[in-house]
Amino acid sequence: MVGGWRRIAGVASTRTVVAVDVGGTETKAALVSGRPAAAVPLAEHRRPTPRRADSGTTVAAVVDLVLYLVEELRREGGREVEAVGVVVPGVVDEERGVGVYSANLGWRDAPFAELLTARTGLPTAFGHDVRAGGLAELRLGAARGHRDALIMPIGTGIAAAIVVGGRVHSAGGYAGELGHIDIGHGEPCGCGQRGCLERVASSAAIARRYTRRSGREVRGAVDVAEAVRAGDQDAVAVWEEAVTALGKALVLACTILGPEVVVLGGGLALARELLTEPLGRRLNELMTFQRPPELRLAELGDGAGRLGAALLALDLLEAR
Amino acid sequence: MVGGWRRIAGVASTRTVVAVDVGGTETKAALVSGRPAAAVPLAEHRRPTPRRADSGTTVAAVVDLVLYLVEELRREGGREVEAVGVVVPGVVDEERGVGVYSANLGWRDAPFAELLTARTGLPTAFGHDVRAGGLAELRLGAARGHRDALIMPIGTGIAAAIVVGGRVHSAGGYAGELGHIDIGHGEPCGCGQRGCLERVASSAAIARRYTRRSGREVRGAVDVAEAVRAGDQDAVAVWEEAVTALGKALVLACTILGPEVVVLGGGLALARELLTEPLGRRLNELMTFQRPPELRLAELGDGAGRLGAALLALDLLEAR
Repeated sequence: MVGGWRRIAGVASTRTVVAVDVGGTETKAALVSGRPAAAVPLAEHRRPTPRRADSGTTVAAVVDLVLYLVEELRREGGREVEAVGVVVPGVVDEERGVGVYSANLGWRDAPFAELLTARTGLPTAFGHDVRAGGLAELRLGAARGHRDALIMPIGTGIAAAIVVGGRVHSAGGYAGELGHIDIGHGEPCGCGQRGCLERVASSAAIARRYTRRSGREVRGAVDVAEAVRAGDQDAVAVWEEAVTALGKALVLACTILGPEVVVLGGGLALARELLTEPLGRRLNELMTFQRPPELRLAELGDGAGRLGAALLALDLLEAR
Repeated sequence: MVGGWRRIAGVASTRTVVAVDVGGTETKAALVSGRPAAAVPLAEHRRPTPRRADSGTTVAAVVDLVLYLVEELRREGGREVEAVGVVVPGVVDEERGVGVYSANLGWRDAPFAELLTARTGLPTAFGHDVRAGGLAELRLGAARGHRDALIMPIGTGIAAAIVVGGRVHSAGGYAGELGHIDIGHGEPCGCGQRGCLERVASSAAIARRYTRRSGREVRGAVDVAEAVRAGDQDAVAVWEEAVTALGKALVLACTILGPEVVVLGGGLALARELLTEPLGRRLNELMTFQRPPELRLAELGDGAGRLGAALLALDLLEAR
């Protein structure tokens, strides 16, 4: 986050929007001033994401929370808000403005854009957290200047923003489910398939597999990375399995898409060269005729989704 | 081919172009009259594709052949030619107008667009055979009206035209190599990888695997399809392996891309419902959260590449 906001500070601000990233546990909001190519945060807020018994009441509670955040930020910032950008996880159809499905937050076919526009009385852009984060990395971060890219945050789960010809591809919300491609390990996944990348290479999976193998509890993949650096052989084995799985998945994705650059983000990217160096070697070993992508670390941290939400809102104002 | 040309007959013709599809063995050309959304062929020619000892002389011979075909078709059609569209196989960078690599025809980094424009004295569009064929299916064939599609010709090899947001994705020529994704069978491929789809599911592979298994020679996958219909158990086994492999590959591609429609073309699509029915069942079994694509047969036959070349030339005139 810090990197992203810092990079764009000093740019002439022209419009003021509120950007909201509705996460699985926490909702992060910011008052942002800027234009589509740049944005500067004026104030920030965090609240727990509400979760109710059913889809309809959860959606209503999320809309209420956005409304509250818009009012708070408007008041604190002392500026008129011209538009709102909201991003959520799950399957999101940006074109229809619908949250199609979220396993985590429990909604189905929630018409967020319509509800938010009606309740806020402001132009509201609605998007997907990973694709919005990808848009931010594309315009302001590690994928700047590229037309064909893959931006892959690796955290509790794995997904990707697919950039094709300078635009983030959505396919009605179904594109980019890189965490659920079969890389052949055979283990069942919560999605109903077997062999999913996510079961071996997500931050959560790395921590879980390390504990299963070594009997030692860890707080997360960051601890496993630390153990790798200390020469712990269980950690090394689990890490290598994760890197090999990521390598296989990226070879598949690159054979289909041919990106110039692959940006690694999320919690796992905090391991920096411990991730990029062996993964780069693995790609070089596995690829034959394909164009090897440049491997980069994300630059915008966990604020990328919110920054992307701000860009969507600024784009919406620009298009009017 | 016939289907494609027939569909668009009767449309008011506005510009006249020559379209050339340089194939691995044969080069097909047509004089075409039309506009970017439609095209009508006035005359056609076929010649063996020249192949010389090295890249430079092969490229020069191909350029000479295009020149000859343009002159012949101009003479026969009795019309002034306004532009030329040429498509070739291999890795093609449409943006730079370069034939980056063809294993089959032996060239590397051949500046076709520049050479052809200089020699013909006409605006010349240069493209990739599979992507141009995909463009034709998108505008005039089985993918009409869709924004996100995969058009996959299955012949000697397997490749795909990836349509994203209504445009064919190239990635500097590296996109769409669906024949070379690892689906886990472990057999080595000519590309240097193992487990490639093409080794099990191309028309050539199906014929080869049937002969290896049964000891019976066949002319191609069409004969194997015939044997499947007659209840030949070797044929049934080989066909099922191919369908399963295609199913795995399409699940991977759909998990990444989320297309609304998958169009099957090339020689193998001549088997029609013998291909689409079991493949559709396989996709339904394998997919869980993904959006199942509609499976369709290509409508434009083996003239799709040439029709696409005509569309590229008409687009070029339109853009001027």
